[in-house]
Amino acid sequence: MNSTGVGGDVFFVLVGAILVFAMHGGFAFLEVGTVRHKNQVNALVKILVDFALSTVTYFFVGYAFAYGTTFLVDAATLSGGGGGFELQGLTLVKFFFLTTFAAAIPAIISGGIAERMKFWPQCVATVALVGIVYPLYEGIVWNGNFGFQAWLEATFGAQFHDFAGSVVVHGVGGWIALGAVLLLGARMGRYDSKGRPIGIPPSSLPWLAMGSWMLCVGWFGFNVMTAGSLDAASGLVAINSLMAMVGGILAALVVGKNDPGFVHNGALAGLVAVCAGSDIMHPIGSLIVGAGAGAIFVIGFEMCQNKLKVDDVLGVWPLHGICGAWGGIAAGIFGLESLGGLGGVSLMSQIIGTVVGATYALAAGFVVYGILKSTMGLRLSQEDEHLGADLAIHKISANPEHDLGR
Amino acid sequence: MNSTGVGGDVFFVLVGAILVFAMHGGFAFLEVGTVRHKNQVNALVKILVDFALSTVTYFFVGYAFAYGTTFLVDAATLSGGGGGFELQGLTLVKFFFLTTFAAAIPAIISGGIAERMKFWPQCVATVALVGIVYPLYEGIVWNGNFGFQAWLEATFGAQFHDFAGSVVVHGVGGWIALGAVLLLGARMGRYDSKGRPIGIPPSSLPWLAMGSWMLCVGWFGFNVMTAGSLDAASGLVAINSLMAMVGGILAALVVGKNDPGFVHNGALAGLVAVCAGSDIMHPIGSLIVGAGAGAIFVIGFEMCQNKLKVDDVLGVWPLHGICGAWGGIAAGIFGLESLGGLGGVSLMSQIIGTVVGATYALAAGFVVYGILKSTMGLRLSQEDEHLGADLAIHKISANPEHDLGR
Amino acid sequence: MNSTGVGGDVFFVLVGAILVFAMHGGFAFLEVGTVRHKNQVNALVKILVDFALSTVTYFFVGYAFAYGTTFLVDAATLSGGGGGFELQGLTLVKFFFLTTFAAAIPAIISGGIAERMKFWPQCVATVALVGIVYPLYEGIVWNGNFGFQAWLEATFGAQFHDFAGSVVVHGVGGWIALGAVLLLGARMGRYDSKGRPIGIPPSSLPWLAMGSWMLCVGWFGFNVMTAGSLDAASGLVAINSLMAMVGGILAALVVGKNDPGFVHNGALAGLVAVCAGSDIMHPIGSLIVGAGAGAIFVIGFEMCQNKLKVDDVLGVWPLHGICGAWGGIAAGIFGLESLGGLGGVSLMSQIIGTVVGATYALAAGFVVYGILKSTMGLRLSQEDEHLGADLAIHKISANPEHDLGR
Repeated sequence: MNSTGVGGDVFFVLVGAILVFAMHGGFAFLEVGTVRHKNQVNALVKILVDFALSTVTYFFVGYAFAYGTTFLVDAATLSGGGGGFELQGLTLVKFFFLTTFAAAIPAIISGGIAERMKFWPQCVATVALVGIVYPLYEGIVWNGNFGFQAWLEATFGAQFHDFAGSVVVHGVGGWIALGAVLLLGARMGRYDSKGRPIGIPPSSLPWLAMGSWMLCVGWFGFNVMTAGSLDAASGLVAINSLMAMVGGILAALVVGKNDPGFVHNGALAGLVAVCAGSDIMHPIGSLIVGAGAGAIFVIGFEMCQNKLKVDDVLGVWPLHGICGAWGGIAAGIFGLESLGGLGGVSLMSQIIGTVVGATYALAAGFVVYGILKSTMGLRLSQEDEHLGADLAIHKISANPEHDLGR
Repeated sequence: MNSTGVGGDVFFVLVGAILVFAMHGGFAFLEVGTVRHKNQVNALVKILVDFALSTVTYFFVGYAFAYGTTFLVDAATLSGGGGGFELQGLTLVKFFFLTTFAAAIPAIISGGIAERMKFWPQCVATVALVGIVYPLYEGIVWNGNFGFQAWLEATFGAQFHDFAGSVVVHGVGGWIALGAVLLLGARMGRYDSKGRPIGIPPSSLPWLAMGSWMLCVGWFGFNVMTAGSLDAASGLVAINSLMAMVGGILAALVVGKNDPGFVHNGALAGLVAVCAGSDIMHPIGSLIVGAGAGAIFVIGFEMCQNKLKVDDVLGVWPLHGICGAWGGIAAGIFGLESLGGLGGVSLMSQIIGTVVGATYALAAGFVVYGILKSTMGLRLSQEDEHLGADLAIHKISANPEHDLGR
Repeated sequence: MNSTGVGGDVFFVLVGAILVFAMHGGFAFLEVGTVRHKNQVNALVKILVDFALSTVTYFFVGYAFAYGTTFLVDAATLSGGGGGFELQGLTLVKFFFLTTFAAAIPAIISGGIAERMKFWPQCVATVALVGIVYPLYEGIVWNGNFGFQAWLEATFGAQFHDFAGSVVVHGVGGWIALGAVLLLGARMGRYDSKGRPIGIPPSSLPWLAMGSWMLCVGWFGFNVMTAGSLDAASGLVAINSLMAMVGGILAALVVGKNDPGFVHNGALAGLVAVCAGSDIMHPIGSLIVGAGAGAIFVIGFEMCQNKLKVDDVLGVWPLHGICGAWGGIAAGIFGLESLGGLGGVSLMSQIIGTVVGATYALAAGFVVYGILKSTMGLRLSQEDEHLGADLAIHKISANPEHDLGR
């Protein structure tokens, strides 16, 4: 029986890991559909390779950095033979689950830097981000490292509550991406000589929508399985994720004037924002938080592109960065008992945790991509960018048969 | 331990909800592939927005109407603090699961009314259908409302048995769709001046197939997780779904003369038909029921399009309406102990439940879409229909870059 | 409680079955993306129909052949009423799970024989392979039939260890495919008059990548749920699958010079190779095994196509056949306790089991496809091959609307 309990947890967390792993396919296809045809292959390869590099880096470095666990013992020990490892390899499945979170950092950034970034510098950035930058903040928030959470609790009565990572994952990814995008500069032809934006149309709405669907479906694993065990599994997390997602869809529909890109990204905006408080908010609060995120994304995307002239191709800064920050703060509002939530949060702690996370990530983005810019360089040559990353880097296009005139 | 039991049920029903949620992506891509290129974006947005509207409507109105449960209490109560709510938010996950069923109603209809329906009237229809029309019959069959089931049991010895919704979901959706399609009329150019059908070719078999795959995969959640708890989980439901699906594939292959659209829809026909009796039929009975459905779909589709001149674009009336009715009745045959089933069904109850459901849905379809037709209007202008719903409604096509000549 | 335990196992194995079923969609789309546009529909229909035929064949013949179980008893018995059937239909779910493995045999072969094989002979081959050829070796290895495993254990101290089927499934499929491909001959125009290869470009990298993603995601079910019960669920299997997959990606990236086809197939190569020893190797061992497989695939694919002039379209012999054999042998190396593994394996048993499996499968491939060649014929007519299997067999192309000039 004891053992069955552990088997159930292994199964539970594994399904979460599989679902979030599938989200990475979603990141890939969302980018495939949003970029131009000549950069589709690059989007696919980047996401898969970033995932692989993230896994290896997090296995050997990042996870140990955040949680102090190292896997350099024999398989019998790893599977539950003591040494702090849980039975039936439960610890290993938890690692798998958290790896899919860590790998979301480069996957988020990928959408911002699309269509003009060199391949290998991005690989190096992935290693640095997943090995050091992300696990540092992850460990601070989720493992109580460096006493930040203890200080918040002592000072404001509650820790920074970020259940599934509105800030720890999405906010950090989105604000690093802002730094990377600013250092990288806009795509050729994105703004005219007077700085006016020139539309660069997406290649394929069906692929964009497929990416969004894969992300939405997997997101329920992202949120619910964060509980880590069947005993802690909560239907509230599931329904809150659902309500925030539909809130994001409906707000983006209205504010975004029925634009398909906004509607499909609106779902994601709602899901980004609900992560932090999904375990403590009321479903109606989640609907409002999600709707807010959907509206924030549409307005933020247009502001980012047209006013600030930041050429963030998929809008990952508004989507993950701003909506993530909104989610971190909103958990401190809609998590309150007075608004039907479960309570136990402090708005001040939420604001501080969010601002610290965003500031840290933006600074880290500037540092990591700044060093790379001054060493390896970040951008494709003008010729390669014009040709497209597919032919320039991968020597093949997305539809090779078609190129040959069939 | 007690708690682990509930956690297991939360997990079980949640996976079902996620799988059926993913089916909605399947509805979207099945329609994307079947319609013309100029209506692909509209298919994608319709399904996502209908899902969002369905969720909100079912949360605030429909679920209460069917089951008498309202969610307007605080999150602590919702999560299992009494008031009829189960521990660990199990009630909320069950709501999520049933929401994905309710949202299937507009998703089914969407395929029938494709390529010429206005956007906002369909949104209003979704709210009416998911708020009132569907939960009324759902509550009658699955919650024993209004004494219909009690009367059947008293009169014929058994209730109307519709385990996972051949009639309650698919039949109702399909017969409402028939009403909608008849009121809407055929697409421009679908029949010539003498009423002869003119083929309108699908845009993409790969997208059609992807939609079918997503539906097939998710369908195992649709059927198996209807059990609602691990104690009631039944491998028989799983294998019956499998057998009916492959029966539908093979029958559609033969009857449909190796046409890819028929083969991929044949799988769905089998799955529609098996829902009702999947918990009580023998696997060989399910194979026969599925094969029957595959044949019925092919013949029904061609009859509908060519003889009856009903321009049901995806054939949702034959697929969900007729095959759903076949499934409801077949459960009363192949569920019998004499045919290897588990018994406990009455053929008369099955026929009555099916006929009542189909008649009710057809009438409701005429009422809802009839009111909308006489108020908001149902059809796009001829100009907009010619232009395509994508550009007319969403101001963008499925492949914007291609339109600009790259 | 007792019952809950069984319900948990039903759920566990069912999720595995669903995941591996979804892999078949992956097989379909991997082939869709790799073949030319004129053969995309055929790829889709072949996989779906092969799956259906496999299910029926395995239900009535193959499963009984391998495990001695027949389903020709009533549903009450099947669901757990004695006769060797487990409670809650657990036996049926296990059958479903293993059906998805059996159906992988024709799905693997499909990619090798693509673009020029007749439809109905392949259907007959599927029945023969899933009814007899595969279950014979499956039963020998996984059910101890014919004393082969007992002999290995007596002679070399351990049975042939193939946990999730590197050899039993992938190796057998890949080596049968080699026989089929050799008998079938190269596609028209694949080699010039002097035998020099002429590149035939794939139609769509996004579809190829989608196939790879579906396979990768489902593969975690393929490996982990092979345990068959929650008590036996092992996180080690999950993490080893993960590590081998990323090893395959990274090795294919480097050896394959950033080619997207190699990178996406490299992930699969790693997963093929890790099946056998995923339950006993150390994660670092799995990383090495996967990396080895990624490199083997790239080199093997180029050797196969260019040196050996074997026109194996998707490279299923290097991918499943050679990497499967590598996985079978590698389990005997990296499973050793001295290399951090759990031990209990014999390298000699691994080599013998692998060589016997590959030899048997190659011979069976020659026999089955040889008989078909001399009776029904294997190849499309030159005219049909030139026209494409879509129009020749299915009378429709992948994008019918486009063909008509919209």
